[in-house]
Amino acid sequence: MKNVGVERAVVLVSGGLDSATVLAMAKTQTYDCYSLAFDYGQRHHSELAAAEIIAGNIGVMAHKVVKLDLSTIGGSALTDDTIAVPTEASTGIPVTYVPARNTVFLSIALGWAEVLQARHIFIGVNAVDYSGYPDCRPAYIAAFQHMANLATKAGIEGNTITIHTPLINLSKADIIRQGLILGVDYSKTVSCYQADEAGRACGMCDSCRLRRDGFVQAGVEIDPTRYQPGKMQ
Amino acid sequence: MKNVGVERAVVLVSGGLDSATVLAMAKTQTYDCYSLAFDYGQRHHSELAAAEIIAGNIGVMAHKVVKLDLSTIGGSALTDDTIAVPTEASTGIPVTYVPARNTVFLSIALGWAEVLQARHIFIGVNAVDYSGYPDCRPAYIAAFQHMANLATKAGIEGNTITIHTPLINLSKADIIRQGLILGVDYSKTVSCYQADEAGRACGMCDSCRLRRDGFVQAGVEIDPTRYQPGKMQ
Repeated sequence: MKNVGVERAVVLVSGGLDSATVLAMAKTQTYDCYSLAFDYGQRHHSELAAAEIIAGNIGVMAHKVVKLDLSTIGGSALTDDTIAVPTEASTGIPVTYVPARNTVFLSIALGWAEVLQARHIFIGVNAVDYSGYPDCRPAYIAAFQHMANLATKAGIEGNTITIHTPLINLSKADIIRQGLILGVDYSKTVSCYQADEAGRACGMCDSCRLRRDGFVQAGVEIDPTRYQPGKMQ
Repeated sequence: MKNVGVERAVVLVSGGLDSATVLAMAKTQTYDCYSLAFDYGQRHHSELAAAEIIAGNIGVMAHKVVKLDLSTIGGSALTDDTIAVPTEASTGIPVTYVPARNTVFLSIALGWAEVLQARHIFIGVNAVDYSGYPDCRPAYIAAFQHMANLATKAGIEGNTITIHTPLINLSKADIIRQGLILGVDYSKTVSCYQADEAGRACGMCDSCRLRRDGFVQAGVEIDPTRYQPGKMQ
C-alpha cells in the first residue's frame, strides 16, 4: 500500500472520454494528480479546453499543457491537413495513428515525473479498442516502463517508476460504466477526431463510432455527447 | 551490409561537437541523413543556428527543427532560468541534466523515422564523458531500442529499428580525432551551456571544460572554439 495522499502521479489527459476516466480513477486511488496535456498540432483545440475543464472538475494539483509541434514531422491525418480523416471503419493501422505519439507523450510525462519526484504515470491506452495502434499494447507499455527506469535519476536510485494503464483490458462500455460510478461528466469530454471549435462531435469518425457504441453497450439511454447540428442526436 | 545510398537515417543534432561528428559518421556510412534538432526552451538559440549550418555543410536530405517547450515542466539549469549553470566540476547527476531529454528526443526521432520509413536513428550519447546523465548509458539505449520496436508499425512488420550510438565508448579526444579525419569544421559547433547569441563559448562550464580538454588531448594545437571576448583564447 502506498501512503495515502503522499504519492504523486502524472496523468496524461487529452480531453477525451478515456483519459477523463483514468484521471478519476487515479484521484480515487488517492494520488495527488498532475495532469498533462499536449498542444501537438492537432486539428482542433477544443479537446485542450475540455482537458482543462475536466482536470479542474476532478481536482488536480496542477495542470500543464506542453507545446510540441508534431506537424513538423507529419505522417498522420490528425496532424497533417493533407491526409483525410476516414469515416469508414478500417483494418490495420489507421491513418489517424500519430507516429510514436504515446512514446513521445509518455517521455514528456516521465520528464515531469522526474521534476515532481513522482513515481507513477497514468495513461488511458486500451488494447481492446486500440484499432491497430502498436503503442497501445501491454508489451509496449512494459518495455516503456523498463526503459523509463533506466532513463531516470529515480530509476538509478531504486525508486521504481510505474506506468499505470487501468483501461488496458476494458471495453469502451466498461470504461464508461466505471467512469459514471466515479462521477465523470462525459458531456465535458471530446473524443471526436474532427470536433468543431465548440467541442461538438462529427458523429462519423472511428472515435465517434466507438464512443457511441460504448454508451449503447453500457446501457446509457441518452448519449451525453454534444454533436454538431444536423449530425447524430 | 545495407544497400548503399538507400537506407535512411534520422540523426539527432544539437549544434554541438558530438552530434556534428555523429552526422559526419552517418554520412560517411552512406546513409541518406535526415537531421533533427529541437527548439526546447534552451537558454540560447545559437546552437540551433549552428545545427542548421552543420547539417548544410555535411549534407543532409532534410533538416527539421521541432518546437517543444520543455521549460513548461522545468527542472534543469538548461531550461529553467531560476537554476544557475555551475562553473565548478560536480559529482553525481548535474543540474544541467534535462529530465528525460534523450528519451523525449529519441521518441520524436522515432516518430519521424516512421514517417520516413527509416530504420536507423543516430544519437551522440557518450558513456565516458556523460557526467552522470542516466540516459547516456548503453543499458538505457538498448532498452529504448527494444521499446521502439514494440512502439511502431516498422517493429510490428519486422523492420527492426536500430539506435546507433557511435560515440558511446569514445573519449572526447577520440571523437575529435575521428571528426577531423571526416572533415568536421568544429569552429561551427557550439557546445557551451551558456553561449552568447553569436555562439561564442563561456569557457567555464562543464561542457566547455570537457571540450577544451578534448582538443588538448587530441593534440590539436589551436582550439577552434570561438570564445566570448575576455574568456579563454
